[in-house]
Amino acid sequence: MKVAIIMGSDSDWGVMKAAVDTLKKFGVNVEVTVASAHRTPQKVYDSVKNSDAQIFIAAAGMAAHLAGVTASLTTKPVIGVPINSEPFKGLDSLLSTVQMPSGVPVATMAVNGAKNAALFAVEILALQNDTLAEKLITFRESMAAEIDVKDSKLKEALL
Amino acid sequence: MKVAIIMGSDSDWGVMKAAVDTLKKFGVNVEVTVASAHRTPQKVYDSVKNSDAQIFIAAAGMAAHLAGVTASLTTKPVIGVPINSEPFKGLDSLLSTVQMPSGVPVATMAVNGAKNAALFAVEILALQNDTLAEKLITFRESMAAEIDVKDSKLKEALL
Amino acid sequence: MKVAIIMGSDSDWGVMKAAVDTLKKFGVNVEVTVASAHRTPQKVYDSVKNSDAQIFIAAAGMAAHLAGVTASLTTKPVIGVPINSEPFKGLDSLLSTVQMPSGVPVATMAVNGAKNAALFAVEILALQNDTLAEKLITFRESMAAEIDVKDSKLKEALL
Amino acid sequence: MKVAIIMGSDSDWGVMKAAVDTLKKFGVNVEVTVASAHRTPQKVYDSVKNSDAQIFIAAAGMAAHLAGVTASLTTKPVIGVPINSEPFKGLDSLLSTVQMPSGVPVATMAVNGAKNAALFAVEILALQNDTLAEKLITFRESMAAEIDVKDSKLKEALL
Amino acid sequence: MKVAIIMGSDSDWGVMKAAVDTLKKFGVNVEVTVASAHRTPQKVYDSVKNSDAQIFIAAAGMAAHLAGVTASLTTKPVIGVPINSEPFKGLDSLLSTVQMPSGVPVATMAVNGAKNAALFAVEILALQNDTLAEKLITFRESMAAEIDVKDSKLKEALL
Amino acid sequence: MKVAIIMGSDSDWGVMKAAVDTLKKFGVNVEVTVASAHRTPQKVYDSVKNSDAQIFIAAAGMAAHLAGVTASLTTKPVIGVPINSEPFKGLDSLLSTVQMPSGVPVATMAVNGAKNAALFAVEILALQNDTLAEKLITFRESMAAEIDVKDSKLKEALL
Amino acid sequence: MKVAIIMGSDSDWGVMKAAVDTLKKFGVNVEVTVASAHRTPQKVYDSVKNSDAQIFIAAAGMAAHLAGVTASLTTKPVIGVPINSEPFKGLDSLLSTVQMPSGVPVATMAVNGAKNAALFAVEILALQNDTLAEKLITFRESMAAEIDVKDSKLKEALL
Amino acid sequence: MKVAIIMGSDSDWGVMKAAVDTLKKFGVNVEVTVASAHRTPQKVYDSVKNSDAQIFIAAAGMAAHLAGVTASLTTKPVIGVPINSEPFKGLDSLLSTVQMPSGVPVATMAVNGAKNAALFAVEILALQNDTLAEKLITFRESMAAEIDVKDSKLKEALL
Repeated sequence: MKVAIIMGSDSDWGVMKAAVDTLKKFGVNVEVTVASAHRTPQKVYDSVKNSDAQIFIAAAGMAAHLAGVTASLTTKPVIGVPINSEPFKGLDSLLSTVQMPSGVPVATMAVNGAKNAALFAVEILALQNDTLAEKLITFRESMAAEIDVKDSKLKEALL
Repeated sequence: MKVAIIMGSDSDWGVMKAAVDTLKKFGVNVEVTVASAHRTPQKVYDSVKNSDAQIFIAAAGMAAHLAGVTASLTTKPVIGVPINSEPFKGLDSLLSTVQMPSGVPVATMAVNGAKNAALFAVEILALQNDTLAEKLITFRESMAAEIDVKDSKLKEALL
Repeated sequence: MKVAIIMGSDSDWGVMKAAVDTLKKFGVNVEVTVASAHRTPQKVYDSVKNSDAQIFIAAAGMAAHLAGVTASLTTKPVIGVPINSEPFKGLDSLLSTVQMPSGVPVATMAVNGAKNAALFAVEILALQNDTLAEKLITFRESMAAEIDVKDSKLKEALL
Repeated sequence: MKVAIIMGSDSDWGVMKAAVDTLKKFGVNVEVTVASAHRTPQKVYDSVKNSDAQIFIAAAGMAAHLAGVTASLTTKPVIGVPINSEPFKGLDSLLSTVQMPSGVPVATMAVNGAKNAALFAVEILALQNDTLAEKLITFRESMAAEIDVKDSKLKEALL
Repeated sequence: MKVAIIMGSDSDWGVMKAAVDTLKKFGVNVEVTVASAHRTPQKVYDSVKNSDAQIFIAAAGMAAHLAGVTASLTTKPVIGVPINSEPFKGLDSLLSTVQMPSGVPVATMAVNGAKNAALFAVEILALQNDTLAEKLITFRESMAAEIDVKDSKLKEALL
Repeated sequence: MKVAIIMGSDSDWGVMKAAVDTLKKFGVNVEVTVASAHRTPQKVYDSVKNSDAQIFIAAAGMAAHLAGVTASLTTKPVIGVPINSEPFKGLDSLLSTVQMPSGVPVATMAVNGAKNAALFAVEILALQNDTLAEKLITFRESMAAEIDVKDSKLKEALL
Repeated sequence: MKVAIIMGSDSDWGVMKAAVDTLKKFGVNVEVTVASAHRTPQKVYDSVKNSDAQIFIAAAGMAAHLAGVTASLTTKPVIGVPINSEPFKGLDSLLSTVQMPSGVPVATMAVNGAKNAALFAVEILALQNDTLAEKLITFRESMAAEIDVKDSKLKEALL
Repeated sequence: MKVAIIMGSDSDWGVMKAAVDTLKKFGVNVEVTVASAHRTPQKVYDSVKNSDAQIFIAAAGMAAHLAGVTASLTTKPVIGVPINSEPFKGLDSLLSTVQMPSGVPVATMAVNGAKNAALFAVEILALQNDTLAEKLITFRESMAAEIDVKDSKLKEALL
């Protein structure tokens, strides 16, 4: 049970750390690679072809080709995270990641949606792992409980 | 091995038929439901809660909430297909589907990306089904072969 | 005479406080709830179904489904406030809130338009409350008077 | 119980007819005026100031100022319908209608959302009219029933 | 020879001061008014109808109706300055100002283009004033000379 | 009293004919030139430098540089008409025309706003010509009268 | 002296034919390949690595990665042509092609700018080929002459 | 072997310095000129017509006409760099630079893509200079090596 995370630049680490942390919290193995679709195409090729991960998460900004290139090299599920990059705030990254042609899908998350990428990977793995499935339900419940607490605090403050 | 497809309107069928066809071609069971997040919230709730599908594909246009609502009701993987709708050509559907808050992911496809939604569902199911995994590789090869044919035809025409 | 305000996250409070303040200034009762359409769908359902408010104001960012979900659960007027959220500055929130399908309206305000949401709620309530109607006219007059003062100050400064 | 509809041009009638039809179906009186904020400012002024309607619906395209101008002349609720106009497909109309400054709200519907404008007006009037309130619930139920029928037809067709 | 500047809010003064300064530098009389199309429609009406200016410059942000409203009240030339306002950075102001319907033109400048609005007013007035016409040519020459200086400085720095 | 119209391509004639017709209706002389800022820079230079027109109207699509180039060659008023061109529907033309740097203004009209360009030229010329000024008022009145007729027709049809 | 044109799909041929025609008109050899960055990554790799062309022109729509992938595989000049594809009219193709990260440039043309891609390739080749350089000047002159003819025809028609 | 860089304003130097540095690193001669298409059209004309450079790089913001004007004056390759300028973050610069009409190409780089403009110029020059061609390959290799180092560091940090 392993997820491979590929980032186009080490400057994406600030965003993608949340994915690693989330996967670890769920007890999923992670391998992290910095490899650029444009600057190190061979490294991307090798990283994808030699990986034994079940799922890939690819994160890149601007003309974000990394997720698409990854998807072209494997039939494993590829999750794309468009990175918020200047000056277009991730609109270019989002369109470059999500508008894949018919035949080669990339499952695209929100701009900078690193945590959701990890959660979606866990949802996939949970289909064959009941412990993960239960952890996901617990995660949702604790998230709801946190909101209940915030709601109560605000209501009290308003009394 | 079942995938549930939910559409916000029966007018989405022209687009989503490609998802059903693709899933059937791969031998995956499909259940199709027309249910609107806004007009029939109870029907969406029941469809998701009572389904025994492993994966959901939700398709909607405009303020496309259907995939997000589906994802709020299950921890199974939810794939979103933004529908090209007037007048904003699916920009509203795309942003409404992909920009999910942290905690509840939707795996978003290209606007009208029904076939890719199905293929991505197959990629997920193939993680626990070797026959599907092989079919995916065959599918990619035949897609490449088709392009080879087109390439040859064009090259001949240019001689 | 009560207005219910629902926020998708307590981080929206910085914006939505203006709505509470405005409603209180007009002497309208307010109930405030933090509830997320995606993270706490049941809480949203309960908040809307159990409320005795005449009007709902729903505020959310990104794929802002909260107003639409609220509107799907009631035939009372629902006012939507798209929250300015990163990286798309509320364009996603605006489109997700305003582009509702035919049959289930959401009255959408400007991005971060919390004060106007409250004023619009007051305008609705004033249809059956003459005191509120007079207060609205007074409010407009004092707003105009403030601009007169600013205009005079600037004109003096330019002499 | 009357709703006043103002259109910036008689070419908007193709869209706005749906609002008139819906209001009539609910038994609400309608008065319709063609008056342009830019070409006939006096007519807009007179139409708003002399009207005995409880609610205004204003529809315009391009630099759609009509709803804002109407709202500047009354403290009655004003509902704005941005018209889909060339070449920007209503993005200009939407932003011109919804991005009102603090103090003067316009309740904005989707681009071309004439029917929803009427339904929202009915929701407001229903706050003081139980018959209308019941009709709204019936309307929602029949809308849901229609979707059930479409769902069944599609499911049968797929057997 | 007078130009009237109308601003929707005194917060626009930071931008519009450049227009006043430029007009004064060219020896053109200026009158400045703070008046909001939405919050003080009567004041806008009076300011335009009672002014003896030959040209109007109207500046506003968001749903920027001020230039259009001014143009609806006069057949004198109206120059519009869309103000850079949050969160849409003036895209809403620009479209609300420039996309005027046929029959009532607004001469639109760049977002925050206060200085150019003043220069364009001078260009109009210069058609009947040779001194102004000469000053404009001198202005262009000095602008070109400044660029020559900057060019030389950069070239030296690079030696 | 002459207005020079320059078009980037003879394919713009379908749009710009309305400007010629309007100017002629007001009795203003027009000279029309097809000259491209990119394909015939010398012709643009000569057309502007040798013209005895008081006002220039420049129309172009895509990267619409024509109005800016014209404005760089004269201190006479330059009115820009962004042409609706594929695939960006005039968004590129609009931004290329309106976003002029400080110092060289272009008075920009709506996309395809040929008639308004002519009317604005007339408004400028009317500052020194009372007959034109009266014609403009008559034009506005007849425009308002037309809307009155349309309003009456629609009201009758609805009885 | 050879230019290699790679298209992501044979459906791009309708647009890219203009590039082939233009190159042939200038006497430049062309090789044309249909190869998709996503569906046939190996074919793209082989086409680029085995080509003896001096310049590559890559054309693709949607998440248009082809030019970027080509540029990652060669240090020869790569010219990108974003294809106008539904529903975003080439905005996605343009951003995916032009927003390349630092280090790996793609020379991007206008959406559907096939002819200009060919002309730019000729401009590059002309740096080492005087005949081509002269042909380019002749081409520009004949283009200007055509515009002169159109200008004269329009002027005559207006007499 | 010389490249001419033209900037619309000396404020673009902060961005364009990277182009000069890169060209120098590759041993290519550079001449730098500050000249504005709108404020100093004659200077642009002279700079282009009198230059003995093989390639032009033109950088400008907002209604960025500089690259297009340069391209209209030469048949040498012109590379355009859209500058990130307020408030539209370079979207206006990008569209004004890239959307050139058929016949006069501009090779457009990413917004602020100064370094890539230089690299692309080097790629062109390398077609007739083997030393440059080798340097480009070395540059790519060292870029890939840097990413390898960053990748190793991150992997170590994660152990």
